[in-house]
Amino acid sequence: MMAIVIFAQFMNLIAPENIPEIPDIVIGRLPVYLRALNRMHIEGKRTTSSSDLGRRLDISSAQIRKDLSHFGEFGKQGTGYHIQHLVKELREILKLNRIWPVAVIGAGFLGHALASYNGFQERGFQIQWVFDNNPEQIGKIINDIEIRSMKLLEKTIKEEKVKIALLAVPAIHAQSVTDRLVEAGIQGILNYAPINLVVPDHVNVGYSDPVVQLQHMAYYIKSDDEL
Amino acid sequence: MMAIVIFAQFMNLIAPENIPEIPDIVIGRLPVYLRALNRMHIEGKRTTSSSDLGRRLDISSAQIRKDLSHFGEFGKQGTGYHIQHLVKELREILKLNRIWPVAVIGAGFLGHALASYNGFQERGFQIQWVFDNNPEQIGKIINDIEIRSMKLLEKTIKEEKVKIALLAVPAIHAQSVTDRLVEAGIQGILNYAPINLVVPDHVNVGYSDPVVQLQHMAYYIKSDDEL
Repeated sequence: MMAIVIFAQFMNLIAPENIPEIPDIVIGRLPVYLRALNRMHIEGKRTTSSSDLGRRLDISSAQIRKDLSHFGEFGKQGTGYHIQHLVKELREILKLNRIWPVAVIGAGFLGHALASYNGFQERGFQIQWVFDNNPEQIGKIINDIEIRSMKLLEKTIKEEKVKIALLAVPAIHAQSVTDRLVEAGIQGILNYAPINLVVPDHVNVGYSDPVVQLQHMAYYIKSDDEL
Repeated sequence: MMAIVIFAQFMNLIAPENIPEIPDIVIGRLPVYLRALNRMHIEGKRTTSSSDLGRRLDISSAQIRKDLSHFGEFGKQGTGYHIQHLVKELREILKLNRIWPVAVIGAGFLGHALASYNGFQERGFQIQWVFDNNPEQIGKIINDIEIRSMKLLEKTIKEEKVKIALLAVPAIHAQSVTDRLVEAGIQGILNYAPINLVVPDHVNVGYSDPVVQLQHMAYYIKSDDEL
């Protein structure tokens, strides 16, 4: 059983002069490898192999070996990969050997869910700010974070050198808020609003739209009489 | 400016005997086209072209024409695509000419956010059930839906012929709940728990893990002195 890629996400290209030699599709698989390796570590495993990892992820072992070979020699013939070592290397490649501070824009249901999720920090990110323009929300506390007014958006991002934002505002406001984020210095936006954003080349946008994923799945669903 | 695909999602392969001739990566782009076309329709546009659509999505017009050509001839030389017609065709191809009932498993912050989101129905899906095993949650109402006990999971899925579930339970429970969903007849799972799920070939899993997407982005972020 092999994996199929769901093309549910687009990412804007980085500036042409900075195109890395390593294909973006390879970079995109590294966090998935990292997640599986961390899980193996929690399970008490010390070593793994490309075929072991591949089985967990429905990716071929050849693909995994090829992907990792872009970055050096991590495994040994016969003994495979030392999990903790490979985790450390992958974290370094992905610039996760630090905690990235993150701002959440929009304190609706989704913004609340994101700010309340405690799975970010152990994987390299910490939500430190939540912004909203609703006076009834401003000043409230979510997970020890006080909701700030959108009026403080640019000032906060510049002063705190924030690079990453989670965009959880209604679709109708998503582009105008994006323009403000980019102007203030944000380089990565994970967009939860169901629209495509226009950004300059040095800004990366990831998309999270459950309906796009569900629509993709629906294509494959069989009615009971087809099964 | 061209798009790069974020490989943040895996999908399990459908059974070998049912492999469609159309590549899954093409199917995955159709919902993105559909979303942009619907947006154009809202903006009052009646026709579009592959280059117009491509500009919005950072996809080449050649790619769009090639993708659509798998399904027939939708555009006319010179006049382009009739938006409403193409929307109708895409909805049919993706089996969205009906409303799919969906179950949310887990009524934590994320489950609440999903059940409260009103953007599903107009795009082909309706959340009709929310399940949780916490006695304090069971019986509560979210967005007109009464939270049901997990004890009713299999019975509900079988009786109501539910095919799609959004999995918003803690990672530690995700696989065991998945086994129950699959056994009861679910064919599509959008998994929000940060682990890879093991499912039979006829079941499709989509993954939504914001940290995987953020880790992918972090690779490209430049510190202020690099810019």
